[in-house]
Amino acid sequence: MLNPSQRGNIMPASPIRKLVPFAEAAKKKGIKVHHLNIGQPDIETPPSILDAVKHSNIKILEYSHSAGNESYRKKLVEYYHKVGIEITKDQIIVTAGGSEGIVFAMMSCLDQGDEIIIPEPFYANYNGFAIMAGVKIVPVISGIEDGFALPPISDFEKLIGPKTKAILICNPNNPTGYLYSKEEMEALEDICLRKNLFLFSDEAYREFSYSGEYHSAMHLKKIPEQVVLLDTISKRYASCGARIGAFITKNKAVYDAAMKFAQARLSPPGLAQILAEAAVDLPNNYFDIPKAAYISRRDLLIKRLNNIPGVFCPNPGGAFYAIARLPIDDSDVFCQWLLESFSFHGQTLMMAPASGFYNTPGKGKDEVRLAYVINNEDINLAMDCLEEALKVYPGRKNE
Amino acid sequence: MLNPSQRGNIMPASPIRKLVPFAEAAKKKGIKVHHLNIGQPDIETPPSILDAVKHSNIKILEYSHSAGNESYRKKLVEYYHKVGIEITKDQIIVTAGGSEGIVFAMMSCLDQGDEIIIPEPFYANYNGFAIMAGVKIVPVISGIEDGFALPPISDFEKLIGPKTKAILICNPNNPTGYLYSKEEMEALEDICLRKNLFLFSDEAYREFSYSGEYHSAMHLKKIPEQVVLLDTISKRYASCGARIGAFITKNKAVYDAAMKFAQARLSPPGLAQILAEAAVDLPNNYFDIPKAAYISRRDLLIKRLNNIPGVFCPNPGGAFYAIARLPIDDSDVFCQWLLESFSFHGQTLMMAPASGFYNTPGKGKDEVRLAYVINNEDINLAMDCLEEALKVYPGRKNE
Repeated sequence: MLNPSQRGNIMPASPIRKLVPFAEAAKKKGIKVHHLNIGQPDIETPPSILDAVKHSNIKILEYSHSAGNESYRKKLVEYYHKVGIEITKDQIIVTAGGSEGIVFAMMSCLDQGDEIIIPEPFYANYNGFAIMAGVKIVPVISGIEDGFALPPISDFEKLIGPKTKAILICNPNNPTGYLYSKEEMEALEDICLRKNLFLFSDEAYREFSYSGEYHSAMHLKKIPEQVVLLDTISKRYASCGARIGAFITKNKAVYDAAMKFAQARLSPPGLAQILAEAAVDLPNNYFDIPKAAYISRRDLLIKRLNNIPGVFCPNPGGAFYAIARLPIDDSDVFCQWLLESFSFHGQTLMMAPASGFYNTPGKGKDEVRLAYVINNEDINLAMDCLEEALKVYPGRKNE
Repeated sequence: MLNPSQRGNIMPASPIRKLVPFAEAAKKKGIKVHHLNIGQPDIETPPSILDAVKHSNIKILEYSHSAGNESYRKKLVEYYHKVGIEITKDQIIVTAGGSEGIVFAMMSCLDQGDEIIIPEPFYANYNGFAIMAGVKIVPVISGIEDGFALPPISDFEKLIGPKTKAILICNPNNPTGYLYSKEEMEALEDICLRKNLFLFSDEAYREFSYSGEYHSAMHLKKIPEQVVLLDTISKRYASCGARIGAFITKNKAVYDAAMKFAQARLSPPGLAQILAEAAVDLPNNYFDIPKAAYISRRDLLIKRLNNIPGVFCPNPGGAFYAIARLPIDDSDVFCQWLLESFSFHGQTLMMAPASGFYNTPGKGKDEVRLAYVINNEDINLAMDCLEEALKVYPGRKNE
């Protein structure tokens, strides 16, 4: 029999999705599972943007421009202007979700064997994109004790070698919820300038910044041609399934290179571009309601977590994730145990073991990621379960 | 300034799209351009499948399953059964267009530096996907004199070395329109079996087989676990912009590897999966009308081409492409000249220079690809233009 490639073998399975069979088994047993494991918001997709697709008058569903419909890119220029980012339509490539933009960035800026530094813990799928691109991820550790703040620049400097081509950040951060300060962004600007590195900035959660101001990498004045902005409408407009993202750069040569990758796959999804274009016309206060919901959920979740003996969770400044440290032996085992062997009043909870967000062996073993994409009532019920579970879990560790 | 990667530099620009600025300039001058350059059919997307999206009742546009909606994969099993291909829903990964499936195949079956043999001329974007995957394409030449039939198996054998992992065919073929016979498919089966190679089969044009019977790689009984079927609804249902394709294999290990790449990008386009699912329920005679249109266009185009002195075009058995040999010095120069410097009764035509479909240097210089995706009246007008152009083109070669 023919076997898969080596890269097919080393490609990691999704740490978020690998527990799915256990959740399904729990549900079959009649247990209610509170899903805090995946960043699928429960916020409704704005009906008006779904209506834009329904009211469209397509005769032939043709390939769009490889960079995306011009009309949509023009609208995106308006959107970015509103959030303080000045770009032109010819600096945008519309992508199939944020994912494709990350692949384009790695492919067009890095070669096989090149290195990219990413603050750890990081979004697990960056591993997959790096394997596709043959790029090596070099993690720089941000600690839970520091609330996952940017590590000191000296930590970056130690890791920079001749193969280092880029730094990748996610801001606000998935999985930590950390929101980078102006000073931190300027520290990154400084090191990218001195070391001649690309700064890839994944800003999927821009609108969900709660504590302090959001600072885009596109605001950095000294490195305009070193920044690649990676974006998506998935979380912004509760449209994860649309698969519409964006790759944006002011570096003409990099843009032209990325466009060749975009041309190879012909065009981004067509129907969803109509939805995305309509979304730019949502009223300016559209974000008020989801943002207020997330803040309320965050406040509740963090309070409940930190009230459980032995649990520590820093307060995240953005996105809708938090990483908590639990008094346990192994979060992979614990999260599976919660689904397989535990219930409280017929309920349990599903979380993402944090080990999948770390490349450094052994890191994150006592941490979990929680996505607060369920309502406050369910958060309370889920936290009741967690509190009870930690009392009876056989692998509990006592200080 | 920071420069793109080497692979960004060597990535080829689309040979089909590079003449677009010249076409736009011609149109600005008031010249009507007949587009025979790109495989964008003029056939209307079936209104009923667009309606399926319009009548959908989505509250939250969620991520779908990474392999695609289960309901759609079940429908696809029905579709494939109708065309004589027996697979299960768990052997299908729904992809963002056919393109993504080709990338998944290369990523999950081949490693950096591995080689894949492709009959030349071939679909130009295979080059781009191979560059993404770090895979080397080894072309085996199929000649216009033989109507682009499969080269003798001895030609393949000469090219197979320790790094050869796969053969990739497109059947019916883009860009040649060639339809592989049962004997040719069995010859491929035989060599894949003997040399332990994957057979990637891009069958995007399955429904458009005119001369003789279509034989899927999935019909090959001796190599069920070596075949990866690559598919798309783009041409089948005139839905190029939907971006829905499929990666299909009975090799469980390869499927599992490909699923990890699929999970990394989360899910295929959501709205378009609704359209694609509805398409499977189109009446069985749906293809009769587009197929009859393509056959009529093909017959007209080939006749007109072969009636022009010095022009030779084999009769394609499927798809909606033909490659013609013209009495010219250089098809890149000629195709640009047609747009820049020529018109006949205020009209001209746009074709794809065939050089972009060859990797072997110098091949295809006097060949062009024509896509018969315009109606017969326009084909006649375009051929009038070509006939006149060849009389006055300064780079004309006489035998």
